[in-house]
Amino acid sequence: MKSILITGCNRGLGLGMIKVLVGLGNNQPAHIFATCRNKDKAVELLALAQQHSNLHVIELDVTDFSKQQDVLFKDISDVVKDQGLNVLVNNAGIAAKFTRLGLLKPEQMTDHFLVNVTAPLMLTKTMLPLLKKASEANSAAPLGSSRAAIVNVSSIMGSIEDNTQGGFHPYRCSKAALNAATRSLSIDLKGDKIIATAMHPGWVKTDMGGSNAPLEVGAATAGIIQFIQSLGEAHNGGFFEYTGKAIKW
Amino acid sequence: MKSILITGCNRGLGLGMIKVLVGLGNNQPAHIFATCRNKDKAVELLALAQQHSNLHVIELDVTDFSKQQDVLFKDISDVVKDQGLNVLVNNAGIAAKFTRLGLLKPEQMTDHFLVNVTAPLMLTKTMLPLLKKASEANSAAPLGSSRAAIVNVSSIMGSIEDNTQGGFHPYRCSKAALNAATRSLSIDLKGDKIIATAMHPGWVKTDMGGSNAPLEVGAATAGIIQFIQSLGEAHNGGFFEYTGKAIKW
Repeated sequence: MKSILITGCNRGLGLGMIKVLVGLGNNQPAHIFATCRNKDKAVELLALAQQHSNLHVIELDVTDFSKQQDVLFKDISDVVKDQGLNVLVNNAGIAAKFTRLGLLKPEQMTDHFLVNVTAPLMLTKTMLPLLKKASEANSAAPLGSSRAAIVNVSSIMGSIEDNTQGGFHPYRCSKAALNAATRSLSIDLKGDKIIATAMHPGWVKTDMGGSNAPLEVGAATAGIIQFIQSLGEAHNGGFFEYTGKAIKW
Repeated sequence: MKSILITGCNRGLGLGMIKVLVGLGNNQPAHIFATCRNKDKAVELLALAQQHSNLHVIELDVTDFSKQQDVLFKDISDVVKDQGLNVLVNNAGIAAKFTRLGLLKPEQMTDHFLVNVTAPLMLTKTMLPLLKKASEANSAAPLGSSRAAIVNVSSIMGSIEDNTQGGFHPYRCSKAALNAATRSLSIDLKGDKIIATAMHPGWVKTDMGGSNAPLEVGAATAGIIQFIQSLGEAHNGGFFEYTGKAIKW
């Protein structure tokens, strides 16, 4: 892949993915676009950008839909030009710590749906012309990240089949909905030779995953980037662990 | 079942279910609660209520969460008293006519999530004390609608696995999320002996289903009420067509 856009990069998995990408040496993408909600809180990301001229940091609240269109799309278009954007990773997301039915508030549901589902969908819509351009510009390549791919960072907690613990309604519902969106996207964009995949990144020691998580950020994100590089037609419209293992909806 | 609450009863499946219930003769529930958003538009429902004293019509916008608690819960409690509420049917819902990615607006996503997911969850939370009462009051009965059950009216379009047509992001995402909520509820409420099931009512000739739908309202709702009466432990946390056929998530 020559270009990749990842949202939510000030910390956690997003920052981890960027570190892996800039560490790929000659194999790193020509253009890496990393968004963060607040540059003031993205000290490490900005430091990386000072060392790597191919890393572009753009401030974006993913729920600011007009800014997606007016700033982000324009900034990226200016850099990639006719080559388009190969990979969009919808990584920015929120997760309420613990939510049983008795404590559930409607605002929690609404917030999770907005950030975890509507924002990725709208960003996909915004970036579609650039994804199409990349797919056309690389029409000799097989389907996947060297052509055009959307990776929605989902979660095993969005697997309805796998749910044996209950609770976590806002997070679980939002990730199941994101999976449904991914599936529709995979069908909607088949004709444009753009694939869409839902990925469970593993349970990782991040602010969201907590300190009990078994996976270190470095190991998980190395695996995630490998997964993105390995994407092919078989992943279109599916739900996979970053190891490549298929997950039931 | 001695009591049942159904939302969205001014027309379509909701009204159809009420007609079937009041037609059950000696087998009809002692108390049927039917909500509608606007009584002025519920002429047929109100006419039925004049003929059937066990049919209680209550005006409710399901997204008015404080009214759920302050009016609906209180009205139903006053009628059912210690017997509680056996069955809650979350039927009220919306569906955008046609929505491909290129035409998608964030408000469509937000509206569908609010009405089709958050409202059923919040209503379930509101009614939980009455469902628990019914379960306790009928502890000799098997799990199901003669004890306590939540039926979330979902759709085959919420099946991610079944999606081969794409599009319809707001509706599909909201129904997949409702399925995820149903699964969590089924686990959360297991200890209270309340079951929760997601049901696909078939493709029915309603304002929502359109005139091309193969099923008549009368036939579909007769099947739906039979399905509700037949609910058992095997349905807890599952996704079924009203015929009883299991559907993949």
